[in-house]
Parts: sequence; C-alpha cells; structure tokens
Amino acid sequence: MNSILVLQSDFGLEDGAVAAMYGVALEVDPALRLFDLTHGITPYNIWEASYRLFQTVQFWPKKTVFVSVVDPGVGSARKSVVARTDKGQYIVTPDNGTLTHLKLYEGISEVRQIDAPRHMRGGTGESYTFHGRDLYACVGAKLASGAIGFEDVGPALTARDIVELPVGEVLCSAGRVRGSIDILDVRFGSLWTNITKAQFDTLGISFGERLEVRIVRGGTTVYNNRVTYGRSFADVSQSETIIYTNSLYRMALAINQGNFAKAYSVGTGLEWGIEFIKPD
Amino acid sequence: MNSILVLQSDFGLEDGAVAAMYGVALEVDPALRLFDLTHGITPYNIWEASYRLFQTVQFWPKKTVFVSVVDPGVGSARKSVVARTDKGQYIVTPDNGTLTHLKLYEGISEVRQIDAPRHMRGGTGESYTFHGRDLYACVGAKLASGAIGFEDVGPALTARDIVELPVGEVLCSAGRVRGSIDILDVRFGSLWTNITKAQFDTLGISFGERLEVRIVRGGTTVYNNRVTYGRSFADVSQSETIIYTNSLYRMALAINQGNFAKAYSVGTGLEWGIEFIKPD
Amino acid sequence: MNSILVLQSDFGLEDGAVAAMYGVALEVDPALRLFDLTHGITPYNIWEASYRLFQTVQFWPKKTVFVSVVDPGVGSARKSVVARTDKGQYIVTPDNGTLTHLKLYEGISEVRQIDAPRHMRGGTGESYTFHGRDLYACVGAKLASGAIGFEDVGPALTARDIVELPVGEVLCSAGRVRGSIDILDVRFGSLWTNITKAQFDTLGISFGERLEVRIVRGGTTVYNNRVTYGRSFADVSQSETIIYTNSLYRMALAINQGNFAKAYSVGTGLEWGIEFIKPD
Repeated sequence: MNSILVLQSDFGLEDGAVAAMYGVALEVDPALRLFDLTHGITPYNIWEASYRLFQTVQFWPKKTVFVSVVDPGVGSARKSVVARTDKGQYIVTPDNGTLTHLKLYEGISEVRQIDAPRHMRGGTGESYTFHGRDLYACVGAKLASGAIGFEDVGPALTARDIVELPVGEVLCSAGRVRGSIDILDVRFGSLWTNITKAQFDTLGISFGERLEVRIVRGGTTVYNNRVTYGRSFADVSQSETIIYTNSLYRMALAINQGNFAKAYSVGTGLEWGIEFIKPD
Repeated sequence: MNSILVLQSDFGLEDGAVAAMYGVALEVDPALRLFDLTHGITPYNIWEASYRLFQTVQFWPKKTVFVSVVDPGVGSARKSVVARTDKGQYIVTPDNGTLTHLKLYEGISEVRQIDAPRHMRGGTGESYTFHGRDLYACVGAKLASGAIGFEDVGPALTARDIVELPVGEVLCSAGRVRGSIDILDVRFGSLWTNITKAQFDTLGISFGERLEVRIVRGGTTVYNNRVTYGRSFADVSQSETIIYTNSLYRMALAINQGNFAKAYSVGTGLEWGIEFIKPD
Repeated sequence: MNSILVLQSDFGLEDGAVAAMYGVALEVDPALRLFDLTHGITPYNIWEASYRLFQTVQFWPKKTVFVSVVDPGVGSARKSVVARTDKGQYIVTPDNGTLTHLKLYEGISEVRQIDAPRHMRGGTGESYTFHGRDLYACVGAKLASGAIGFEDVGPALTARDIVELPVGEVLCSAGRVRGSIDILDVRFGSLWTNITKAQFDTLGISFGERLEVRIVRGGTTVYNNRVTYGRSFADVSQSETIIYTNSLYRMALAINQGNFAKAYSVGTGLEWGIEFIKPD
C-alpha cells in the first residue's frame, strides 16, 4: 500500500461525520495521507457513489485505498467488502452496488468480505448506525497503512457475486444512437450520457455539424432540438447548447455558461433516455 | 504535540477565509498536517460549534490541536483561550461557550488565556475582524508544531470560569423520558436528542416495539405519533419513521431515506422538547 | 519549490472533478502536499477567481504553487500560463484575467506560457474539455515537486501582455469616497468594497461616528442610510449595520449577525457603486 486513503460518502461536510472518520483513521496510523473523493453524494444514492468512483479512481496511484460509504442498508444483512481493481487499487464499501461501474469499466480482480467482528473499532459493540466510522474508516486505514494485508480483511468472495446495479444500454442503429443520462456535472448542469465517443462516432458527425437531440422520460419528450457538436464550449456562443465529449470520453450536453439540467428540468437515471439523430 | 492541526469555523468553503488560515499555519511550520473538522457551522452558532467538537474530538489522536472559530464577539472583551481536555487534546477558541460540551462530557483539565499581543501574527496590529487568521490559526500552528508549549500560550485560567451555554436537562419518570433536540444529522435531517441510551433504557423498550413520540415547542405539539424503536434504518421500511441510537449513543429520530426535520419543520435547541412515552 | 500545491476552481466539491485533479497530481509525485483554496467560485466567474487568489496567496509560504481553473474559454485560443509573483509564488492558470488582482496588488515578476503538447498528461490527446485535470493539475504537480523548473514550463511572455479585467476606480473628494463592491464575504453576506482604509481615512471619521452610505446600481439608489463606523461587529448591536475594515484592509459593510447582501439584494461588480459621505 502507499499510505494514501481516499474517503467518499453522502455525509456532506456540514457536520462532524467526516471528521470523525478522519480521526479514526489517524488513530490507526497518524502518518496516513487522507483525501476526499467527495462527500456530496446525494443521500442514499448508491448509483452516484459508483459513478464517482469510476470517474476518479483511475487517476490515482496504484495501491491507493478508497473508502466509500453510501449505506442505506447499514444494520441489514448487506455484506461489507474490500475489492481490488485490476490496476491494484482497493475499495472498502458496503456491497450494495457501489462497485457497479468499477467492475464494468475498470475490472475487479478480487473481493474479500470484511470480518466485521474482528475489524470493528474497539468498544463499538453497539454500533448499528455508523459503520463508516466504526468499521470502514478503520479497515481502510489498517489496509492503507499496511497494518493488515488484503488477505487479512476476511474470506475471499467471488467477484461475480457482488451486487450490481442495472446499467443503461446503448443502441446504435442507422443514423441514431440511443442511451441514457448517467449523471450530472453538478456545478455546470451538464448532462453526461452513457454513450461513448466511439458509439457516437458511428453517426459520422464532424465537429461543427448540427444534429437532433431528443430527451425522453417515460414516453414523454422533454427536449427536442438541433444542437451543434463541438470540441469544447469555446466552439459555440455563450448560452448556446453544445454536444461534446466529456472528460470520460462519453457524450455530454450542455449550455455554454448556462445550466442545461436546470433550464429543461432534466434528471438522471435509466428512465431518462437520450437520442442523437443524424439529420437526413 | 503531534503536528496535527484541525480547523473548524462558520466561514464556509466558498471564499478564501479558510485558505488564508491554512496559509498562515503553514507559514508557521510547513510540515504541519492540516485537517478540517467542518467549516459548515451555521454562521454565529456557538452551540453547533461546541457540539461538533464533542462529536469528533474524542476520535482523534492525543495531542491533536483543534482551532474553532465561531466568533460573533470578535473585537469585544471576550477572551481567547486554549483548553486542554482530560485526554490531552488542545482546543484554541474564543471563550464564548464553544467549550460547553467538551467540558461536560470529555472534561477540561486546564485552560490558558492567549496572550494576544504576544501571539498575534506579525504586522496585524489593526486586525479587529479576523482573529481566525491573525491569532487562532497562528497560535494553533505554533502549539501543534511544538514551537511553543501549552504554558507559553499565556496565563492559566480556572476551568470553572470559562463561558458555558445552558444544556438541556433530561427528565426520566415512570414510563416517560423527556429531553430536547440538540442538533441535526444535517444531510439526513435526523433529530439528535440529548437523551442517552442509558436514560432511554429506563423505559424498558425492546427493539421492534413501538412507543409514543411527542415533539413540543413553546407549549405547542409539533409532532405526536407512534414510532418503532430499531437498531438501524434497515429495521423499518423505506419512508418509515424510526427511533434509534445514534453514533454518540444518544436517542435519535429519523425517516428511513427521508428527512424528518424537513418533513415536520422541526428545529433544534432547548425550546424544542421531545418526549418518549411507553404505551400502556 | 516546497512541494505544496494549492488548487482553486469553480468545480464544486459535489462530484469527482476535484478528486480527479488530486489523483493526477499524486501520480506525478505521491509526496506532494495538496490543499484547496476554494472550489466554490461561482461557475465561470473569473473575477472571483482572481480576487480569491489576492485574498489568500499572500499568506502562504514562498515557492508555493497554486493552480486556478476557472476556464470558460477551455478549447479556445486562450493561453495557459504560469506566473511568478514578486514574493516567489507560482500560479498555474488559463490567461483569462485570473491574474488581475495579483498583478495589481502583489506584483508579477515573470510569466511563462505552458507548452501544452509537452506537458499534457499522457494519452489525453483528445482532451478538449478538462484541462484542469489533463494539463493544469499535471503542470502544477511537476512544478511543485521540482520535477520541472519554472523555465521548463514553456517560453517566457511579457507580464505586461497577460489578460486583465477592468478594476473599479476609487474617487476621493471633499467629504466623499466613491468606489465599487468587489465581492462578498459569502457566508455572512458582508459587502467588501475596493476602497482601502487609507482612502476611507481621508474622510477623517473616527470609530463610533456615523456616516452616510449610498449604494447605487445603474443610476438607481439601492440603499441609503446612516451607518456607524466600528472596529468590529462587537461595536454595534445585534442586527445593526456597521462599516468596518475587513481582513484585507478595505472597507466593508455588514449587518451584525445578519446578511447585508440578502437583506438589500445587493450584488457585486463594477456596476455596483458605493459611496461614503461625511455628514455636514
């Protein structure tokens, strides 16, 4: 391990929950280097937690340990696990779907179930509500500091058996690519779709061309317009809409210096379909 | 000291106030390890600052130095102090009630008044408005780095004399426990009461049983319902209300995957009473 | 360099954008010490980015490297630069006005244009939309870690030629000082003007005196009242308005324990004029 521990949660930074986790980790090893992925995951939103891991883990050094705590099932029979990615990074998390995107796009080579009675922070026998502090931060810190090895976490599981959320499909047909809206670039209100650049490129559209965009929810068309395909916001006027390739090489839709999601009340998830249609 | 410095304030993270404090601390000693407790304290809310220290300080290593700046009285005659807890951690803060909970629940063994003229950052003679940067961050950094010892802070005060905010009482009678709502688990809207698990247990309620909950403000009943007592959210259905023991072993009230405080417009403070009543 | 890297952006902390930059920097050198200035800059607001640098950079150690990414022109012909301040700190940023205040108030001794093809993160040939991660974080990390020297960034530019935003003027006449509202102390809603204490002092007002304040926008008077000049909030009653010297020794206007900006719907920028008038 490399002594780097990265924390993610839906706790927000407004109260003491994250700081309590930091303290616990530093009690394990005061030399640990602690960082935040984000603590702004929408409360209880496992999908977002999974996506944010996919968006960031790949950019961190090998042997980095991540702890992700979006845990609506705390206290239930859901397992606690540590997953090792193909690149050799570690994710400490409840097994509730949080590993969906990493498994699909990065690859997970091995999973171990956390032996909770063994690794629970001392004196927390009655902790039913805050495993983030009492179990996950503790295990993450032990692992990142080298106090325990991956094999000491607990028994091996089959990577195939971990919980996965349904991921939207992309359909490419003649002159059309249809997918769904995965998530927002929160601050800017840009829509990030599940359509890769390679899939979009089957349309044979060049930078500067316009194409039809349809956003549909539950059979109802929410947005339908012609939009320019550009390299970056600088290719369109201020307040103009643009289709572009985002930082994960997937297609995105934005208003230059505006907020598309707010402007058209568009949300995210499998029920939010988006279609790019090449004009005749 | 252990070179760990933890900052808390009501400054938020949206402007440069916190970063200025970080810079000042690193100018004192670039090897310091800096962390945030939270900067999301409601502006001017000393009670919250005090509670967040209680919620987190206990989980950090011994000899950690904390700086808490919620300071509506900056520029007044309020003292600036450093307190040492019984566990041997240090809190740098205005003496305005911020130490209330730590004194009550952790114990404060010694207090020193900061000799401001001696410790104020150089060239800040006319600083009347930002002691967070010009005094507290500076003293915290000197102390955490070992540049000064606790006895160099300034003259000793009597711990008995530091400012304390009134704390709500808990009344246990036959079949009833009455207390107040201390604070929120902000992101989730859960109510955290001042009633400990031990006090609640005098009711003789078992997990899975239902009991009556009354929330009263100024003589008016704001909420009155039967609620299940559970180990954790997983013990009730989604959107169902639950009484549970929070991460500080006090009784809390929440809607599973909802937001109780918003749903019923409930606030915090001594004027928000809460009563648990065992059914006949 | 001192291995300290400080990041600023308008990305917010709610998604993975900042964490991706952190990862990239630690891939360059895992021993780097990473800090945030703020990521709460209003989206696309270059002025705010420039001001927050001015507000904080001066308090950090020499040889600290800052990365500021508020980059509405990403993908356009705007240059990417590294500036060295007179104090010997480094700012990695798009050349879009972000250096305005530092140049004016701190002094910029040298500027180099980033040789983007040379310094772009490996395998990111098609990165048109996230230079924060693929270029700026990478260059900042190389520089902060000493992997490259300032002269390796790219060709020298003339500091005179960097882009500057217009800065409001201050007019001092008999009994009047007129300026504009630069920015807010966000959490508290205090107005920070561009009028320095020295300019205000030409009025000859003493602490405790009252003077007339006029706020004008586009010819319309938005606020006009007599306000006390105090050392700090403690000099006025709760909810009373006060003129005071802020932490950058400029004049500010606030409601003690209130929020002036919200109370009177006051904004910031050159079009928001403010005038202090000495009573007859």
